[in-house]
Amino acid sequence: MKNSLFLKDLISSDDISSENLTVIFEKARELISLVKQKGGDNRLQGRILAALFFEPSTRTFSSFITAMQRLGGGIIPLNGMQNTSIEKGESFEHTIRVFSSYADCLVVRHPQVGMPQIAALVASVPVINAGDGIGEHPSQAVYDCFTIVSRFIGKSRLTVSLIGDLKNGRTVHSLAKLLPKTGLKINFNFVSPEVLKMPPEITGYVKSKNCPVTETDDLLSVVGKSEVLYVTRVQKERFSDLGEYEKIKNYYVVNRKVLQNSAKDTVIMHPLPIAAGEISDDLDDYPGSLYLRQQLQNGLYIRMALLDLILRDQ
Amino acid sequence: MKNSLFLKDLISSDDISSENLTVIFEKARELISLVKQKGGDNRLQGRILAALFFEPSTRTFSSFITAMQRLGGGIIPLNGMQNTSIEKGESFEHTIRVFSSYADCLVVRHPQVGMPQIAALVASVPVINAGDGIGEHPSQAVYDCFTIVSRFIGKSRLTVSLIGDLKNGRTVHSLAKLLPKTGLKINFNFVSPEVLKMPPEITGYVKSKNCPVTETDDLLSVVGKSEVLYVTRVQKERFSDLGEYEKIKNYYVVNRKVLQNSAKDTVIMHPLPIAAGEISDDLDDYPGSLYLRQQLQNGLYIRMALLDLILRDQ
Amino acid sequence: MKNSLFLKDLISSDDISSENLTVIFEKARELISLVKQKGGDNRLQGRILAALFFEPSTRTFSSFITAMQRLGGGIIPLNGMQNTSIEKGESFEHTIRVFSSYADCLVVRHPQVGMPQIAALVASVPVINAGDGIGEHPSQAVYDCFTIVSRFIGKSRLTVSLIGDLKNGRTVHSLAKLLPKTGLKINFNFVSPEVLKMPPEITGYVKSKNCPVTETDDLLSVVGKSEVLYVTRVQKERFSDLGEYEKIKNYYVVNRKVLQNSAKDTVIMHPLPIAAGEISDDLDDYPGSLYLRQQLQNGLYIRMALLDLILRDQ
Repeated sequence: MKNSLFLKDLISSDDISSENLTVIFEKARELISLVKQKGGDNRLQGRILAALFFEPSTRTFSSFITAMQRLGGGIIPLNGMQNTSIEKGESFEHTIRVFSSYADCLVVRHPQVGMPQIAALVASVPVINAGDGIGEHPSQAVYDCFTIVSRFIGKSRLTVSLIGDLKNGRTVHSLAKLLPKTGLKINFNFVSPEVLKMPPEITGYVKSKNCPVTETDDLLSVVGKSEVLYVTRVQKERFSDLGEYEKIKNYYVVNRKVLQNSAKDTVIMHPLPIAAGEISDDLDDYPGSLYLRQQLQNGLYIRMALLDLILRDQ
Repeated sequence: MKNSLFLKDLISSDDISSENLTVIFEKARELISLVKQKGGDNRLQGRILAALFFEPSTRTFSSFITAMQRLGGGIIPLNGMQNTSIEKGESFEHTIRVFSSYADCLVVRHPQVGMPQIAALVASVPVINAGDGIGEHPSQAVYDCFTIVSRFIGKSRLTVSLIGDLKNGRTVHSLAKLLPKTGLKINFNFVSPEVLKMPPEITGYVKSKNCPVTETDDLLSVVGKSEVLYVTRVQKERFSDLGEYEKIKNYYVVNRKVLQNSAKDTVIMHPLPIAAGEISDDLDDYPGSLYLRQQLQNGLYIRMALLDLILRDQ
Repeated sequence: MKNSLFLKDLISSDDISSENLTVIFEKARELISLVKQKGGDNRLQGRILAALFFEPSTRTFSSFITAMQRLGGGIIPLNGMQNTSIEKGESFEHTIRVFSSYADCLVVRHPQVGMPQIAALVASVPVINAGDGIGEHPSQAVYDCFTIVSRFIGKSRLTVSLIGDLKNGRTVHSLAKLLPKTGLKINFNFVSPEVLKMPPEITGYVKSKNCPVTETDDLLSVVGKSEVLYVTRVQKERFSDLGEYEKIKNYYVVNRKVLQNSAKDTVIMHPLPIAAGEISDDLDDYPGSLYLRQQLQNGLYIRMALLDLILRDQ
């Protein structure tokens, strides 16, 4: 049964309104205090989350199954979906309908864009997109927004620089579209080499939301003016030509030297994994580095909030 | 500790009496209402189910671990049992004894007939057979019976046509033996190509239970006279000669045209996965199609019932 | 947050004091009675254990996730850590920090000696070493000590013979160092072929704890004088030269004939798996054989005790 009180499915950042964000953030704050006090509770006892990862994952998979269990729910943990009925020739649609009969919510990751949307069409229970190729990864966008909002309480205007592979990075696509819905006034810098530029539809969208955009390939030119440096890795798996990948993978390296001219409150974010040295190890314990702690923790709280909102009082 | 109040182990349909079926079905009805109200509860808190799948599975594996968790129990989820001590040279018997020391119940799937029986002999806790090669899959037979009984309340006589690979299909073997124990008067049609005929010992058994049997390879001749069309796939993995498989895999295709002369209340069942088009996609949402919803849901309820009966008050 | 009341991390037997052992054993006895009465309870509800097995395991993995769930906690079950971010180039340190943000405790197995120690250095939550190559496996040493102490209540002096691969066997290294801390007076026999002798630093250590040590390659010479025969397998995976392995794997075979001159209360222990016939099958149900039941059960109780002590009242 789809939930009428909140979101039915979470497939794209487009599904999320400003009002949704407010509700999710408020719920997340309630859950932070719960986790700090006692780890979790049993509010989702008897409920089951199926984590159907047709492409393997460590962080997102673990984050969702942790979120479910901290609220007392159970899990169907299928990471990789190797050895599945799909191999025996079953269609994706049938597999999704099977899990609709077992679980109360499906979290779907798939290497192909659009498959979570197809899942949502055939499923009789809510579906959360946990990443579909170069498509979207909306729960990550929500927690990145939450991390920024929580860090800059009291500020109404921020400059956010998205850096790296803006062409293939689903994270930055979802984030760019969602951030304006937080109510913050955002100035964007889109920092990338020419071949990895932000797709024009995203740039057009954020401009239509009254967010000024500067596109550049010069990282140093934006560091001093940014509250948020959001760095992404160049994703090897999206390149057919590995020579091309090798040329471009170290285009940007953020290290202490690069940050010399940054403002005192500048934060560095990254969706992880950091795989090609795009952020230097010497920043792991830098006070402004949020990627190894606050982003991950907020990822957990936001996913707990989403599951609680989607699964309770159905 | 083996449970003296109910079944000790569930290895074959032969283990299940008419009285057992009545108890299981009653428990399942209680649990349907629990799941609909609140998903589950914590009656098996502290209990552990080890799902030991020496052959990988999606549906059966997920169904059992879901059932256990909806009742508040924990799981040891080993799907595929790759990378196990077995690879380090440990015997099957030792592996089973290891899990007897950790878990309260073992669910065992194995590609070889008879291994769950061996497990039951060495285990100090109850063992459920979740499929042993071309052997049996008794929990599936129980939920198929439950699906039929629940669908045809008020009827005392049914014609059930088992269609497809009746030679290698453990599902139809278990079902044919169990269905007479529901108390329904069953007329069987065994519909298969000659090379995939029902083994004579099964045919002989159901005849001895006063169930008339018609054997035929002509699907159309039985459609109009059947309340239940139970279709099975031809199992590629049971063929050594793939040419033989290719010739035979589409011997029967059930679609809307085939159903033209069916009765109004005829239902179509299938143990899934549908892999070679043996049921046409256009029947997925046909009102009489039970394979993508009722069978799966009943699978969950029946497994919850079995676990509750086997594990409580030990 | 690291726990100040008890152990922070459990990396080596060296971390464990006599006082720790007393506390762990007392807690284990409390939990044995809990498990026997009702399987477990919900004292760790809301807490999460991440089982990060960079080398696959069956027993240890299953034992830890069972222990956590019997106490009501949740799990991140990653056995094999194939398909992880590590493959995308993420460092071990980052992976550990990621799971520090999700879970309340990390159990780490790794093929390389020292990695759990590195994990403990970067983790913000407690880390338990579940085996690091030929290094240590402290929770196993604890439950082996517990098994011996529980079996020989009332005795103050025991002769313990460690048999087999004493060079590469992390189990016997940890056990030899821990057993003197139980308060029992131990006489050790180290029984191995010359090439698999106990490392001198271990032998030196136990001598310094006033435990007499006899080194020999003659199994029969010690059988009659030992309360404990602790047999280990020759670990194929530690040999680069398989010819060498084949020559040595059946150096010792313990069977009923070997035990002819053993004392009435002599027990046979083994860390499992028994892979090359080093203990004969005909001893599986021998009254003194503890390896298929008491050791495994105590493994579960001790891990429950460790998790309870480490995770509660943080």
